[in-house]
Amino acid sequence: MLQNIRVVLVNTSHPGNIGGAARAMKNMGLSRLVLVDPIDFPSHEADARASGASDILQAAQVVATLEEALVGCNLVLGTSARDRRIPWPLLDPRECGITACEQALEGADVALVFGREYAGLTNEELQRCQYHVHIPSDPAFSSLNLAAAVQVLVYEVRMAWLAAQNQPTKVAKLETTAMLNTQLVTADELESFYTHLQQALEEVGFLDPQNPRHLMSRLRRLYGRNNISRAEMNILRGILTETLKAARGEHHKQGKSDV
Amino acid sequence: MLQNIRVVLVNTSHPGNIGGAARAMKNMGLSRLVLVDPIDFPSHEADARASGASDILQAAQVVATLEEALVGCNLVLGTSARDRRIPWPLLDPRECGITACEQALEGADVALVFGREYAGLTNEELQRCQYHVHIPSDPAFSSLNLAAAVQVLVYEVRMAWLAAQNQPTKVAKLETTAMLNTQLVTADELESFYTHLQQALEEVGFLDPQNPRHLMSRLRRLYGRNNISRAEMNILRGILTETLKAARGEHHKQGKSDV
Repeated sequence: MLQNIRVVLVNTSHPGNIGGAARAMKNMGLSRLVLVDPIDFPSHEADARASGASDILQAAQVVATLEEALVGCNLVLGTSARDRRIPWPLLDPRECGITACEQALEGADVALVFGREYAGLTNEELQRCQYHVHIPSDPAFSSLNLAAAVQVLVYEVRMAWLAAQNQPTKVAKLETTAMLNTQLVTADELESFYTHLQQALEEVGFLDPQNPRHLMSRLRRLYGRNNISRAEMNILRGILTETLKAARGEHHKQGKSDV
Repeated sequence: MLQNIRVVLVNTSHPGNIGGAARAMKNMGLSRLVLVDPIDFPSHEADARASGASDILQAAQVVATLEEALVGCNLVLGTSARDRRIPWPLLDPRECGITACEQALEGADVALVFGREYAGLTNEELQRCQYHVHIPSDPAFSSLNLAAAVQVLVYEVRMAWLAAQNQPTKVAKLETTAMLNTQLVTADELESFYTHLQQALEEVGFLDPQNPRHLMSRLRRLYGRNNISRAEMNILRGILTETLKAARGEHHKQGKSDV
């Protein structure tokens, strides 16, 4: 369950970041926020940045030490910007999301721990974590905003959770058939279209039957890769029909009584 | 190259979000920021939130319209919070990162477009995008902070980029670019094509300007998902030119000396 995953912010300076973290959590379906010795909380600025997630701020647990924040936790994952002298099991955000989600779904209590804006977590705090998580930022400018770091990890938790539930990570499918919610044209319908298209191109003078070059091949490749739906085909055929009429001088513009 | 990927923020209200977006970009190795009609920029608050990324703000391009922001772009990905009446090819953030990165590595110019804090992108703006990207947030509280949304997408771009650097064979190719082995059209070229197409459809009497229905939207969707190459675009434009001539009776069939 996602509510088994708590977000722990250690010694946060800027209340705006607490609010931003709360909003990111709620966006991704998490709700349990623990604040270790925050510098300025509760705060107007935290509420402002939380936007509609002030319920998470109101329910936030404020404690004095990291130890208290981690009571009952089976798995503790701590964010780390830097390489440490003592190498530690390291996860990237995706592995963190998967690990946290797997454990939470098995009933474990999981903590994602984030350090101070400028100094991160101390070595002692990091040693309370089973895993360190590093967001793979550009080494030339590696320090993420605190709320942004929370956003990345809770996003990965949600992606893992959706995958575990077999829920789609997007509201519609990329596949065009599903996307268009309708039938694709068949090969023979496509062939009729090409015949019609060729006829129209000859009529408007774009295709010379004596010297067709590779024009129809190119057009077949263009339209062929497009998974045209039946509704779209009706539009294309309609265009060709009107084009032929216009080219043959049988042209009656819509909205005019005559030409 | 990651610098081929630009982040476009449309009509942003809060300068803090512009600063936050700049910081997220620089953290993930991106640098090119385009601001469409920002409400308050330059701004002290943007600089404060950008932290060490004020170089990105200083180099940011400020333009009046989305069209200007997309000049030269081959692939336009727009973030969308809502279901739309006309379904559009949809990517989740991971697919977005892979697609953007793959195209950028092949030399294409890519835009990630983000809408207004409260209203997102308009339908018209969304129709300028080949793909929509939806961050799979909790439906009960779905709207991410703007800078947080930028963070998620640029994080996924970086994850895809890192994967591509380490395991070049594992990144799935978008078949079309490789298949065509040639340059894709840019967003502005596509817009010119739609203008030309609409003109031709009106001239042949297929499109009634008094009652356009969703015709152009449907055609945008059809052609927009197709990664049209420049050579193919020349063919399509040629067809439209000849169609217009034919419909206007300026018709000279090829292969005949006169009509």
